[in-house]
Amino acid sequence: MTVRQWNTQAQNRAARRERAAALARGRHVASADARALLEAVLEPGDRVCLEGNNQKQADFLAKTLVSVDPARVHDLHMVQSVLALPEHLEVFERGIARKLDFSFSGPQGARLARLLGAGKLTIGAIHTYLELFGRYFTDLTPKVSLVAAQAADAAGNLYTGPNTEDTPVIVEATAFRQGIVIAQVNEIVDRLPRVDIPADWVDYVILAPTPNYIEPLFTRDPAQISEVQVLMAMMAIKGIYAEYEVNRLNHGIGFDTAAIELLLPTYAESLGLKGRICRHWALNPHPALIPAIEAGWVESVHSFGGELGMEAYTAARPDVFFTGADGSMRSNRALCQAAGHYACDMFIGSTLQIDLAGNSSTATLGRITGFGGAPNMGADARGRRHASPAWLKAGREARAGRNTIPRGQKLVVQMVETFREHMAPAFVDTLDAWELAEQAGMPLPPVMIYGEDVSHILTEEGIANLLLCRTDEEREQAIRGVAGYTPVGLGRDKRMVENLRDRGVIRRAEDLGIDKRLATRDLLAARSMKDLVRASGGLYDPPKRFRNW
Amino acid sequence: MTVRQWNTQAQNRAARRERAAALARGRHVASADARALLEAVLEPGDRVCLEGNNQKQADFLAKTLVSVDPARVHDLHMVQSVLALPEHLEVFERGIARKLDFSFSGPQGARLARLLGAGKLTIGAIHTYLELFGRYFTDLTPKVSLVAAQAADAAGNLYTGPNTEDTPVIVEATAFRQGIVIAQVNEIVDRLPRVDIPADWVDYVILAPTPNYIEPLFTRDPAQISEVQVLMAMMAIKGIYAEYEVNRLNHGIGFDTAAIELLLPTYAESLGLKGRICRHWALNPHPALIPAIEAGWVESVHSFGGELGMEAYTAARPDVFFTGADGSMRSNRALCQAAGHYACDMFIGSTLQIDLAGNSSTATLGRITGFGGAPNMGADARGRRHASPAWLKAGREARAGRNTIPRGQKLVVQMVETFREHMAPAFVDTLDAWELAEQAGMPLPPVMIYGEDVSHILTEEGIANLLLCRTDEEREQAIRGVAGYTPVGLGRDKRMVENLRDRGVIRRAEDLGIDKRLATRDLLAARSMKDLVRASGGLYDPPKRFRNW
Repeated sequence: MTVRQWNTQAQNRAARRERAAALARGRHVASADARALLEAVLEPGDRVCLEGNNQKQADFLAKTLVSVDPARVHDLHMVQSVLALPEHLEVFERGIARKLDFSFSGPQGARLARLLGAGKLTIGAIHTYLELFGRYFTDLTPKVSLVAAQAADAAGNLYTGPNTEDTPVIVEATAFRQGIVIAQVNEIVDRLPRVDIPADWVDYVILAPTPNYIEPLFTRDPAQISEVQVLMAMMAIKGIYAEYEVNRLNHGIGFDTAAIELLLPTYAESLGLKGRICRHWALNPHPALIPAIEAGWVESVHSFGGELGMEAYTAARPDVFFTGADGSMRSNRALCQAAGHYACDMFIGSTLQIDLAGNSSTATLGRITGFGGAPNMGADARGRRHASPAWLKAGREARAGRNTIPRGQKLVVQMVETFREHMAPAFVDTLDAWELAEQAGMPLPPVMIYGEDVSHILTEEGIANLLLCRTDEEREQAIRGVAGYTPVGLGRDKRMVENLRDRGVIRRAEDLGIDKRLATRDLLAARSMKDLVRASGGLYDPPKRFRNW
Repeated sequence: MTVRQWNTQAQNRAARRERAAALARGRHVASADARALLEAVLEPGDRVCLEGNNQKQADFLAKTLVSVDPARVHDLHMVQSVLALPEHLEVFERGIARKLDFSFSGPQGARLARLLGAGKLTIGAIHTYLELFGRYFTDLTPKVSLVAAQAADAAGNLYTGPNTEDTPVIVEATAFRQGIVIAQVNEIVDRLPRVDIPADWVDYVILAPTPNYIEPLFTRDPAQISEVQVLMAMMAIKGIYAEYEVNRLNHGIGFDTAAIELLLPTYAESLGLKGRICRHWALNPHPALIPAIEAGWVESVHSFGGELGMEAYTAARPDVFFTGADGSMRSNRALCQAAGHYACDMFIGSTLQIDLAGNSSTATLGRITGFGGAPNMGADARGRRHASPAWLKAGREARAGRNTIPRGQKLVVQMVETFREHMAPAFVDTLDAWELAEQAGMPLPPVMIYGEDVSHILTEEGIANLLLCRTDEEREQAIRGVAGYTPVGLGRDKRMVENLRDRGVIRRAEDLGIDKRLATRDLLAARSMKDLVRASGGLYDPPKRFRNW
């Protein structure tokens, strides 16, 4: 009888570290030895987490990984939140990696689809962030993680500053499963402002030749907000935020929600809503929220990640943002997603396509873009048990007249203009996601938010309250009834739509008492980047590409 | 014009620390000064998180809190996962605290109900753990947190060992919102085995007079498993685990699921299921899982918390359990709950009452027990997007013949004998939760798992597959059809139940090809605590109360 070994992972870890021993002094490795380090610690077939976040990128380690010898390091299984950099795909082109599990691929979506079509990689699955993190502790634990931090000290403790993002969850999953954690840092200092990751959990630290790249993903120039978006924001505030008393929420990315943020100190203030809505946020530090914060609307913001240029502003507003004793913000994507799922009454975001059942998707043909955080926040949190006025009212509306046990429900609002760029209709009979699923061999079409979970669809034509629909047909007509001049909108049953409007299922701006003539850019609390800087008292420091004055 | 102060929380924090300055040397405070420390840093009305977990208790700090002068410290708002100790309620009796938000109150449930009835406290809400943690970052952020760790070093870094549990999430929410973190520790050491919480995040450390209490909540003596439970476990394995190829799962607490764990290396092995089911777990280190682990069934276990007596065993099995470089386990309730929600295909657990719609509750009259982790794990994870055979099959069954977009679904199994203690029927027309809600002024009845989310109900009479039910009536009859000789069971429509059985909606042991005569305790891989110790090679060290040999 052979005795089973129960520490094969630990032995494997020790062997990897042994191979790299000559390269490290303590935990520190010279950047010139980075490639040698990766070739020493990586083994073919390894599951590797390369920190690619919404904002912060372990870009030096990504470049280094692309440079390893594919004869030595190949068939890696990449697990990472975001595919943001060209290198995130080059590892597949070069044959270094073979399989991918991820959440969001934004700008790399088209290239990802091409590589998939060319047989250069297989996709395990597309996740929402918290789901992917959950799998890091189950069946997708990384063997080697390549992360980024702002600074390290001599011992190897890490300081992430405002851009903590995914780092703690990646490191925890890897370090506590006998994996190897390698961090690139922008500086080595004697004493860190604070410790974000203990040195114990880190194997190697490399001072990168250049600071890690950070993408200002949530910055929207108010100058580009249209008057249609102002009108939609007015309808959102009066027809949804005020009606449900929404106090804890998340805003998706984009101009639609930026317009809402900029209308809080003006239009919403004129409705007497200050202190009654929008007090607690799960949100990155959106520059567009500055005027509302300055006007005293916001009690707290917990963030998934940082936002480039907002460092000094968030540090100067510790009553609002989560900040450390050192004075700088602390973000944490895993915990903020938990807050977004369970502690928020509403998720509101934009989408690209909505079908007749209310299913929405950002997938378009030839692009595999993924989901990010939207499915987690844009799903009814069925495990939630605490009540709030918004949640109870939504639950009552969804269940009225039904013989079912009472239950609350999350508000999930999809906001979209009826036509998007190039006059492509946002409302469609069939989502592109179906064809994409077929092309890519996915078991299900990649739906971002399911119609079952959507409570409201908001367009420039009005608000469709899907909670109040009692049949599939009603739901379809409620959607057609706000779909404007798209073929889906033109296909409406006019009598039924009018009936839905009489019942309040569909509400137009005029039904809400909104004077469309007021829907001008004058309502925006800031109309330019410069206005945002001014509102922040000069604390907000926009990235160069947004400096147009 | 007055300039708004944006650092009032930081100033308040500084003032609190100033009041305590004389008591602390560095971060260390003598246990004799603990009461003075709390009286110095606490202010009336504070939101306070007292670490009460499933296992680990900050018991010295709980006792200290009870001892403060209510004239100085009063009207606290307690936020905590678990009410486990008498002191957790004494703070309300003594007028020190006034309001409570929590998740689980197990043994204190009856006393909690009495205090509520006597007007000694108000309950904000009852949560599932991850939901409460989410609110720590939104609208229930603690101002002062009282936590427990195994050890601290001179600088104030904390080592939690296997019982990390809630500590990281509590400390993160408090420390990064200008709150005060106070930790009791069992020892002060020169060098920690590893750092679980950086000193930066901790304000005060107190060496407690006695080690913190740890409850062995997940230990079940195999000697107490009945043959009915063996039969139910056989049905679960053959009728659900094998059919859906369940590989990633969580087991609730109790003898029902312990029986399943103990049947893996025997009955499930005889069915050829090894390597095909039960490979990845989100689970505390259940002693009952030892035989399956030893037989090579289990690839990974990530844990919410530790389990008393399992420390040496988990440390000796690092290929299976998440362990640190120091060799001891690392648990993390927040991250394990995320894994349980998003990365598990099945939750199976016991309950006390099930109604005709499949809603289940552990609430009984005169007891407010709370939910723990069950709602989070026993809810369909609507944000999930990755596929697995189990999830796809459940989704197909739920949607077959329906004109709806395909979607997967979680398996949520409620396992219950038709009669519980004192011949109380487990199946009822109306849950006690309704009356409890009325008594306690809750906005909704405290349902642990909603019928909408339940996929299967398993009793000694059979398995009801609710996914296959197409109408409320079918669902009711499917439930009646496994409800045995309870009034609900006797009220079945026999013809309809037989029809459901023909369709495979209801399946009896004989329908599954299970020979009931084999359902004896002989099938259990361990029949006593001593057997578990033996199976562990002497590594498992059961708490005294379980040592009956």
